[in-house]
Amino acid sequence: MLSKARPILEDTIKDMFSTALPTCFKLADLGCSSGPNTLLFVSEIIDVVYELCQQQNCKLPELQVFLNDLPGNDFNTVFKSLPFFCDKFGKEKGDLYGQHCFISGVPGSFYHRLFPSKSLHFFHSSCSIHWLSKVPEGISNNKGNIYMATASPPNVFKAYQEQFQKDFSLFLRLRSEEIIQGGRVVFTFISRSTDDPRSKDCCLIWELLAKSLLDLAAKGLVLEADIDTFNLPYYHPYEGEVREIIEMEGSFDIDKLETFATNWDANDDINNNNFVFDKDQCGRNVANIVRAAAEPMLVSHFGDDITDELFKRYAEYVGEHLCVEKTKHINIVLTMTKKE
Amino acid sequence: MLSKARPILEDTIKDMFSTALPTCFKLADLGCSSGPNTLLFVSEIIDVVYELCQQQNCKLPELQVFLNDLPGNDFNTVFKSLPFFCDKFGKEKGDLYGQHCFISGVPGSFYHRLFPSKSLHFFHSSCSIHWLSKVPEGISNNKGNIYMATASPPNVFKAYQEQFQKDFSLFLRLRSEEIIQGGRVVFTFISRSTDDPRSKDCCLIWELLAKSLLDLAAKGLVLEADIDTFNLPYYHPYEGEVREIIEMEGSFDIDKLETFATNWDANDDINNNNFVFDKDQCGRNVANIVRAAAEPMLVSHFGDDITDELFKRYAEYVGEHLCVEKTKHINIVLTMTKKE
Repeated sequence: MLSKARPILEDTIKDMFSTALPTCFKLADLGCSSGPNTLLFVSEIIDVVYELCQQQNCKLPELQVFLNDLPGNDFNTVFKSLPFFCDKFGKEKGDLYGQHCFISGVPGSFYHRLFPSKSLHFFHSSCSIHWLSKVPEGISNNKGNIYMATASPPNVFKAYQEQFQKDFSLFLRLRSEEIIQGGRVVFTFISRSTDDPRSKDCCLIWELLAKSLLDLAAKGLVLEADIDTFNLPYYHPYEGEVREIIEMEGSFDIDKLETFATNWDANDDINNNNFVFDKDQCGRNVANIVRAAAEPMLVSHFGDDITDELFKRYAEYVGEHLCVEKTKHINIVLTMTKKE
Repeated sequence: MLSKARPILEDTIKDMFSTALPTCFKLADLGCSSGPNTLLFVSEIIDVVYELCQQQNCKLPELQVFLNDLPGNDFNTVFKSLPFFCDKFGKEKGDLYGQHCFISGVPGSFYHRLFPSKSLHFFHSSCSIHWLSKVPEGISNNKGNIYMATASPPNVFKAYQEQFQKDFSLFLRLRSEEIIQGGRVVFTFISRSTDDPRSKDCCLIWELLAKSLLDLAAKGLVLEADIDTFNLPYYHPYEGEVREIIEMEGSFDIDKLETFATNWDANDDINNNNFVFDKDQCGRNVANIVRAAAEPMLVSHFGDDITDELFKRYAEYVGEHLCVEKTKHINIVLTMTKKE
């Protein structure tokens, strides 16, 4: 996903600092997580800024990077990897890191204020904003489903849509308070291809998980009543909805709003010439990604006894589905400028 | 220790903002650790700023607090405790925390740059600056000791002193680059009562640990050669030395440099009317504090098999010593202003 967003990230930073770089470039990554990709963003930013400096023949600015995620995120692992990360950059680009790049961790929900007023130049977020602040209220009739599904009653679609409107508006307002005038954002998140929330690229990946849960219920491993009361705090917005919320909220001008499709299995990429389709492997790859995202919520609702069995079943359903049709994720990449 | 430094911390902040508070007060706690005291400093600061605002009848400034410690510090535990901390403050002082206080974690050694140039108003550090950046070089003849000891050869004292001079000068230079002109610092750290580094309030607490290690060597649990090659990266400076280094480095004006004595066992405090001296309990209390500080270094040198036995023996030695004489820690509290 970052590889598709990379040129846009690069163009945005270059456009932002086309005349001059600030003394200290202050930026935040919202929903940084704690895996192999966490520092990839910082690394990209350092590259872009370094290149800009060489072009403008100017002194390297200081970089203050804030890595944000929920307080339960494993910041310790991220922090322990920083010395190696710095060493690598030190070797590649002289004292760039040690002298110029200051990285800190900011625990908290991005549905709350995270930074002082007008303190940042740039916000980035990859694969996070599709998570809602909470499960929408009033959807207790969404039985047998765990998200908007083809079979969900109409109020469920409305409740999810309204929760996203509320959350995304709040998110924009909070960030607009924290960013300087003229500051930029680059957000990438998962969406859907049509206005209809019943579309496959939106619901299907979670419908297969609901189906796997119901299989476990049939075996007596899960209570069906527990499935009925479980719903995901997640939303795939349509690009038209995103545009409308941004315009209504009013703090940012949209510079670019594009969508691109990616295969559910990231290894099954058009650039990966060595890829051989293997339904079992693809099923497992997708299941691992979905598991990494959803496991904490599943465990806190269903306990941790069922997850291995659940994702084994899920991997099979995903693999079977991908044999029939390579359903895609639709990703939005959105860049905006804070209004004067 | 913080209770003794509290009035000085309060006076410094009040003096600093006697005319007006900034829009956003930016400060850092260096060597924040991850125990019950980690957020005590933030809590004190919020109290002082809140009080100042009420006195000046002004809008509460935003607070940006950077908690710093080495990348191996358990920031996850600190971060997980933040929501409870905020709730508590929210209840006591309205929306003070949620709207105004932004806490982040900064992993790294304070013997490196940690923050952008001129980006902070205030530095605090409690019980950290007596840790050196490394064990001094050239002290391989300090056999049977693990720190400066009465029986150490003269070069050992010199090597420790020089390492502190180098480290503390560097520390001052780095902080002076990060703080604004007129910015303040309040540092509290452990020192000694006389110019003579052989003094009991300096060496003894570690001599008893060396003695405990040698007991384990006599039992065959530790190799004597391993003790000979182990030395602590620690230094108890005399206040005269501290003053001289600050004056030589030249970035800060000393506002106050005071010392105060505390009992090795913090429970054995003059304000604790209920305290009954129990040598076993006191020995264990002191051993627990020393263990918390030194265990990671001991484990990485001697392995983790001996630590329980070592600190049991150590607690006995400390208890026996405290029956004979209540040797004190000598603490320095130092406040300074960044020069124009």
